[in-house]
Amino acid sequence: MTDLGKILKELDVILQQRKHADPSESYVARLYEKGVEKIAQKLGEEATETIIEAMKSQGPYFDKNLLAQESADLLFHLLILWAHLGLSQKDVAQILQDRLGVSGLAREKMNQDQ
Amino acid sequence: MTDLGKILKELDVILQQRKHADPSESYVARLYEKGVEKIAQKLGEEATETIIEAMKSQGPYFDKNLLAQESADLLFHLLILWAHLGLSQKDVAQILQDRLGVSGLAREKMNQDQ
Amino acid sequence: MTDLGKILKELDVILQQRKHADPSESYVARLYEKGVEKIAQKLGEEATETIIEAMKSQGPYFDKNLLAQESADLLFHLLILWAHLGLSQKDVAQILQDRLGVSGLAREKMNQDQ
Amino acid sequence: MTDLGKILKELDVILQQRKHADPSESYVARLYEKGVEKIAQKLGEEATETIIEAMKSQGPYFDKNLLAQESADLLFHLLILWAHLGLSQKDVAQILQDRLGVSGLAREKMNQDQ
Repeated sequence: MTDLGKILKELDVILQQRKHADPSESYVARLYEKGVEKIAQKLGEEATETIIEAMKSQGPYFDKNLLAQESADLLFHLLILWAHLGLSQKDVAQILQDRLGVSGLAREKMNQDQ
Repeated sequence: MTDLGKILKELDVILQQRKHADPSESYVARLYEKGVEKIAQKLGEEATETIIEAMKSQGPYFDKNLLAQESADLLFHLLILWAHLGLSQKDVAQILQDRLGVSGLAREKMNQDQ
Repeated sequence: MTDLGKILKELDVILQQRKHADPSESYVARLYEKGVEKIAQKLGEEATETIIEAMKSQGPYFDKNLLAQESADLLFHLLILWAHLGLSQKDVAQILQDRLGVSGLAREKMNQDQ
Repeated sequence: MTDLGKILKELDVILQQRKHADPSESYVARLYEKGVEKIAQKLGEEATETIIEAMKSQGPYFDKNLLAQESADLLFHLLILWAHLGLSQKDVAQILQDRLGVSGLAREKMNQDQ
């Protein structure tokens, strides 16, 4: 029901609509107006918070729901960055698709190995 | 054809399978074995590289394809982190869904406003 | 006159004093009270902002003074992290000293080479 | 003996000298050659690793020496970034000095409060 692909499609439509929204009424329109610098800053903040919540899994206070919240924030701001810079979800999907390729395991190894 | 939701589903299956893979043959299995610390470190690196590519949009050397590559790496390692810590794509989708709610714009404003 | 070593010494004294300060009257005491998670979050934010200002050197809007401001914020929060976790400036100095060693160049190469 | 201010001064001299060094013989000269993008990337990596080591203080595997090592790496690459972009330690010291001002506590509050 709450499929990630489905919600990403909905978000895509909304993020395109927000390009014509009033910055005083939309958080996303406000970020677009402030520009790539502000969006990149938010992305860094959310990535840091995701890392911190993940590291709490090694201590006594891990909260899986907080990790999901920070992850959702990180993903949301990544989508805003793409929309702002004219990158489509399709562009990123194509790269992930190419990496997995026909045989998955082999391509994964080939592409990600250092 | 290359729908992001579709590829995320495929990746989900693969990332679960890799939990039983040989670390010497799979990059993902190797990350699982090294643990959350190493996965979080990779997430931080990919977030940094995404920020750097995004900032290049303000100079003469912006390459949208490089931004897509770094974004794909960031998304891929975020999915690995979720799989490793037992978070499902559904969990994150639910949070994004709740935030958008019925009316999109209103909820976005309510939840994201600072 | 404004020697970085001298100001770091002054900051060290102040950061130790703040351990006994009222959180409602001191930003640093407030960070100590919130704990390592909040301090690490601030460090991530300031690192991101330093990276962003640095990347602006490739575009038309670089402002060296803004880079100095963000760098000062990053350094300040790194010192707060050390103080909070019981790390002394001496501990970090010793590591940097060991790396440089007698001959500087050779040790730098040996220790930092990938 | 291992005073942080003293070692920062030594590093400053070395980092200026490396501007004329052979990239094949010096890690720092290699970073200068690769440019701000690579230096910023290293800064992000070291900041991430410092955050991760700091967060380990909440679990059973905290190693204060590892935190000192990552902190030293972060500081070292921050100094490289300054040297590469023509920022002096004095510039950053001046900003920290201005923030502390005459009365320390008051200025700290004024400048850092959110």
